[in-house]
Amino acid sequence: MSSLLVVSAHAGDFVWRAAGAIALATARGDRAKVLCLTYGERGESAKAWREGKQLEEIKQLRRAEASNAAEVLGAEIEFLDAGDYPLLETPELIDRIVRVYREVEPSVVLTHPLADPYNQDHPAAARMALQARVLAQAVGYDAPGEPLGAPPVFFFEPHQPEQCDFKPDVLLDITPVFDAKRKAMECLPAQQHMWDYYTDLAKRRGVQLKRNAGPNLGLPHNTMGEAYMRLYPQVTEVLA
Amino acid sequence: MSSLLVVSAHAGDFVWRAAGAIALATARGDRAKVLCLTYGERGESAKAWREGKQLEEIKQLRRAEASNAAEVLGAEIEFLDAGDYPLLETPELIDRIVRVYREVEPSVVLTHPLADPYNQDHPAAARMALQARVLAQAVGYDAPGEPLGAPPVFFFEPHQPEQCDFKPDVLLDITPVFDAKRKAMECLPAQQHMWDYYTDLAKRRGVQLKRNAGPNLGLPHNTMGEAYMRLYPQVTEVLA
Amino acid sequence: MSSLLVVSAHAGDFVWRAAGAIALATARGDRAKVLCLTYGERGESAKAWREGKQLEEIKQLRRAEASNAAEVLGAEIEFLDAGDYPLLETPELIDRIVRVYREVEPSVVLTHPLADPYNQDHPAAARMALQARVLAQAVGYDAPGEPLGAPPVFFFEPHQPEQCDFKPDVLLDITPVFDAKRKAMECLPAQQHMWDYYTDLAKRRGVQLKRNAGPNLGLPHNTMGEAYMRLYPQVTEVLA
Amino acid sequence: MSSLLVVSAHAGDFVWRAAGAIALATARGDRAKVLCLTYGERGESAKAWREGKQLEEIKQLRRAEASNAAEVLGAEIEFLDAGDYPLLETPELIDRIVRVYREVEPSVVLTHPLADPYNQDHPAAARMALQARVLAQAVGYDAPGEPLGAPPVFFFEPHQPEQCDFKPDVLLDITPVFDAKRKAMECLPAQQHMWDYYTDLAKRRGVQLKRNAGPNLGLPHNTMGEAYMRLYPQVTEVLA
Amino acid sequence: MSSLLVVSAHAGDFVWRAAGAIALATARGDRAKVLCLTYGERGESAKAWREGKQLEEIKQLRRAEASNAAEVLGAEIEFLDAGDYPLLETPELIDRIVRVYREVEPSVVLTHPLADPYNQDHPAAARMALQARVLAQAVGYDAPGEPLGAPPVFFFEPHQPEQCDFKPDVLLDITPVFDAKRKAMECLPAQQHMWDYYTDLAKRRGVQLKRNAGPNLGLPHNTMGEAYMRLYPQVTEVLA
Amino acid sequence: MSSLLVVSAHAGDFVWRAAGAIALATARGDRAKVLCLTYGERGESAKAWREGKQLEEIKQLRRAEASNAAEVLGAEIEFLDAGDYPLLETPELIDRIVRVYREVEPSVVLTHPLADPYNQDHPAAARMALQARVLAQAVGYDAPGEPLGAPPVFFFEPHQPEQCDFKPDVLLDITPVFDAKRKAMECLPAQQHMWDYYTDLAKRRGVQLKRNAGPNLGLPHNTMGEAYMRLYPQVTEVLA
Repeated sequence: MSSLLVVSAHAGDFVWRAAGAIALATARGDRAKVLCLTYGERGESAKAWREGKQLEEIKQLRRAEASNAAEVLGAEIEFLDAGDYPLLETPELIDRIVRVYREVEPSVVLTHPLADPYNQDHPAAARMALQARVLAQAVGYDAPGEPLGAPPVFFFEPHQPEQCDFKPDVLLDITPVFDAKRKAMECLPAQQHMWDYYTDLAKRRGVQLKRNAGPNLGLPHNTMGEAYMRLYPQVTEVLA
Repeated sequence: MSSLLVVSAHAGDFVWRAAGAIALATARGDRAKVLCLTYGERGESAKAWREGKQLEEIKQLRRAEASNAAEVLGAEIEFLDAGDYPLLETPELIDRIVRVYREVEPSVVLTHPLADPYNQDHPAAARMALQARVLAQAVGYDAPGEPLGAPPVFFFEPHQPEQCDFKPDVLLDITPVFDAKRKAMECLPAQQHMWDYYTDLAKRRGVQLKRNAGPNLGLPHNTMGEAYMRLYPQVTEVLA
Repeated sequence: MSSLLVVSAHAGDFVWRAAGAIALATARGDRAKVLCLTYGERGESAKAWREGKQLEEIKQLRRAEASNAAEVLGAEIEFLDAGDYPLLETPELIDRIVRVYREVEPSVVLTHPLADPYNQDHPAAARMALQARVLAQAVGYDAPGEPLGAPPVFFFEPHQPEQCDFKPDVLLDITPVFDAKRKAMECLPAQQHMWDYYTDLAKRRGVQLKRNAGPNLGLPHNTMGEAYMRLYPQVTEVLA
Repeated sequence: MSSLLVVSAHAGDFVWRAAGAIALATARGDRAKVLCLTYGERGESAKAWREGKQLEEIKQLRRAEASNAAEVLGAEIEFLDAGDYPLLETPELIDRIVRVYREVEPSVVLTHPLADPYNQDHPAAARMALQARVLAQAVGYDAPGEPLGAPPVFFFEPHQPEQCDFKPDVLLDITPVFDAKRKAMECLPAQQHMWDYYTDLAKRRGVQLKRNAGPNLGLPHNTMGEAYMRLYPQVTEVLA
Repeated sequence: MSSLLVVSAHAGDFVWRAAGAIALATARGDRAKVLCLTYGERGESAKAWREGKQLEEIKQLRRAEASNAAEVLGAEIEFLDAGDYPLLETPELIDRIVRVYREVEPSVVLTHPLADPYNQDHPAAARMALQARVLAQAVGYDAPGEPLGAPPVFFFEPHQPEQCDFKPDVLLDITPVFDAKRKAMECLPAQQHMWDYYTDLAKRRGVQLKRNAGPNLGLPHNTMGEAYMRLYPQVTEVLA
Repeated sequence: MSSLLVVSAHAGDFVWRAAGAIALATARGDRAKVLCLTYGERGESAKAWREGKQLEEIKQLRRAEASNAAEVLGAEIEFLDAGDYPLLETPELIDRIVRVYREVEPSVVLTHPLADPYNQDHPAAARMALQARVLAQAVGYDAPGEPLGAPPVFFFEPHQPEQCDFKPDVLLDITPVFDAKRKAMECLPAQQHMWDYYTDLAKRRGVQLKRNAGPNLGLPHNTMGEAYMRLYPQVTEVLA
């Protein structure tokens, strides 16, 4: 069985940016696991702070919302509660991520891109996800489980793609699962303005997907897409 | 039926750089067509010139060799005899390439990368291949046949990849057809030193392929590879 | 009086990509002139060809639509009818553009970005616009009028920005004139699906504009934007 | 009232690289604050060490010189004394910078560029300045004051610009305040050879400024300039 | 005997940008040849046009000045009079350059860099210089003389280096011949303001040269430099 | 006397990637010192771990092998035993490297390139090597010895060069010492498959070296090469 591991900095990131890929995986019967390094309690919960909520309360709120979204997508979810804004890179946190790799044995990994001038937690999460992946491959690394293979890594789309040097090299057709993505977004009520924003983005990526779909003229008018970048070369038996 | 179109500047280019992809395509039952814009009669026939051969004789020699190599690979071949060193970009030549696109209706296109400081004919061929592909898509372009879809384009590997800004993003497993590639190379006796050079390269790309093959641990020791770059984003239903 | 010159490959390009900048200029009382190198009669008129229209008829149609759109925006428009798909770069065409520069004496120039793997006419137009601008600056260049100053050049946004290496470095607030942009778009009935597409894009660029607007918190919810890239460094007396 | 915040690694950096921008700001009546993370006591005080001075003495010397220069420019100055060569990135130091942001509420931020193979303290200071700016924007970040807006960030010019990937995209006309910049430089007597070096640079950037100044032909012969790079897109209501 | 070939677009380019390299070569006893594709009669002779001179008169003036400068440097000079602003790329002109390569058999080639948004003649000259170099290497290319080896190519420094993506990777010590460079510059009286500008630049590059000179502490205070970029990798027997 | 300092992350890196440069240096009578930050005990000793060996045993094994290889090359070797997978960047470790710089006073430094998505220890070692080099230059840095000059830095070739953005700009002719390199490789019996892999790579770089060797036609058929990138500009008195 294939398995998908999504490493995200904050609790909500996986919903806006990768819910389509997750829903496609679970719809195929694959395992999908979301690993949230933090709840996004400081940096991505402005509304709750403005309403006067306290730190622990906000963490619980974010945890519940993200768990609901994961459930809608058929995915497992785990929170490392490492603290955000700033998310600190430590050997201990990286080691915890290694252990998740060894347990999940992912066949595919999704994470943030390596540049984001609007949010340094995102590249910090990505650097740790990448380092943990390499450590988990080493037989000499002291952690339970078997050494990892070399699962491909895809960066999901950041909020301001061009400013993050994000140039899509994979357009994923998420039309069959877009309803699930929309439902997962609606599990995050504090960011209601994002529901339409990311629906529009899915349409836009869908238009581009059709434009690049080769002679494949049968794609429906309302094709929806998600954009990704590969970190490593694709390995294949067919050019297509 | 799928079809593969390979646009190369000189008669021999497709053998060293894309014979694996061609042989895989024909082995699957796809149509494969090689379009050689020139015979490479001036720029890539040093040995023949040093032996005192004349222009027409050299063209015939190159034509025969390339035709043999194509036959070994199960591919059609066509020569436009546009003249090399320099290969000039003209509207007339581009129009001839458009007509080939309209006839072949390729599902995949292979050509040279866009930078090569060692050989300006290569990027000239690539620019024309790309422009013709776009023109062939326009219903308003006056040429026989139906408007083309948007077939993906892959750049094959140049002789000095790093100097040509060639960063592989697809590694193609050509192990099952490597013998055919070797036989095709042996159809070009004037460049015998290249036979081993490109066999070594296939080994090297095979090692990298295994290193990037994810959890796919069953690849054989002698995996052979060819490297490609995509021009346009990949469109897919599965991240892998 | 300031003046804006927009050099575009096809008749419709200026509407989707720069109508906001044009309307802002004319609303300020500046002169704005659109120079269409072609009508886009072959490459951007698929619907008309499919309806069986002929070349001259299509040119007239496109001319009328673009003229209407320019009128809505308060801009002059001129067509060079140089022929599209492919748009050929010739010294004669460049000379005609030089003469337009010398006549308009633009204080700002807008054109396509220099890379577009989906449409080679666009960078061809940009290269000619840039070369003509430099030629027009030379006192020794034989054309009527005074040598040009060095007007800044902005590239407007292409259809697939990331694939064209388009990284916005200017976000223009077009909220006050968005209605005019919408009306100009509606002058192009054959591309009705683009009306909403470019309205959505203006919203998206508006969201980013607010995100980058510094301490300027008074921007309205429905801020609309257009994105541009500068070719030359900005010259200023204030960092802001 | 607008305010300018300059974050520099060592005590003297702001003088050579940004004194013009500072003097322009204070001449307009804006507040300007210079934040020196260190005194540059180890890495940029070679002369004092060679003269046999001790650490504390050198810090006092550098503090006095930089304070004098700030006074000449009409700017406030604060020293965090974080220790240079190496300047270490710590959460505590970043937190101190956040508090400065919250107090100053800058409308513009200046700092070092992100690459400098000749001095790793410079990019370390820049990374901290950027991270603190983002943290200060979060309502959930626990520090006094209001959440920050999103002030634009400009990188000032490093000593070897090309080697630091510094490509100017803003040329600032500092002609009216160049005398103040020269006086500020003369507050740093240990680096007398730099006075002329940075005067020559200002001339050179002035020549380029005139070359890019559009139709603005009235600039004086001795125009003086400073070069900057933007990190985020410019937000504007006028293309110019 | 070694030989140096300098291919420049206009008559004066070699003086400002490469006179140091030329004087060093001839001082060592090498042959140096300057090939000016045009006189710069339209694009780089503003003063003469403003004085009312005519085309042929201006060409003679530029020819005389450049010939004097070459003589000061001990170099041969040849003019192809191909016409500037614009300098057109034609097979005929490239063929004439091939013949110069075959005659000179250069061991080193200098030319313009490949990008210059301020002057399209410069990259046009560079592209032709590079293509001619490759053609001259082919035994099958029909021109007198022996096939060329593969001389290294260096790009000399453009007027606005950062805007031309010019990142120096070679700093040439021209201290011993700087007086000759100054004298050569003074052969171009119409551009007197450039004499000091390029003297200042030589100082600046000299400062950087010393900064990168390794443990080589014996360089004089007034070291003068010229900056270059390599197109091809350096081949060497010693890393230094 | 010149001296070469090689800073590598793991015990074996210097052999595969820089043994030729080291052997050339010692053959010339220069001092060469290899500084291994770790033994590669966790990340690069898979075979030993699979055979059931323990940590200390593996360290001893790797130490012995690397020491033998250094001896074959005539080089000194020192191990800092800083722990690999992950190799942590700490001020203490950087300080230890500074002290080595001050003792060796290298005229040339070799280390890993700054990007390697397959092994984060490599860029970590490079960043520390570069930072220590700059610290060692400061008279105010508190460590024994004299301030360092500014030795050039070369990055040696990583295992997957294109994926590490490694574009060779120096090709070093190691033909005279290739036998020593092969013997040094054979001191590492656990990685026997690498002996041929790196022999093939030396051939490939040798072919490229000949292709870029200018008019230098006397290079032997079996020329062997190593590829490097420069971090800083080359300083020279002769363009060649």
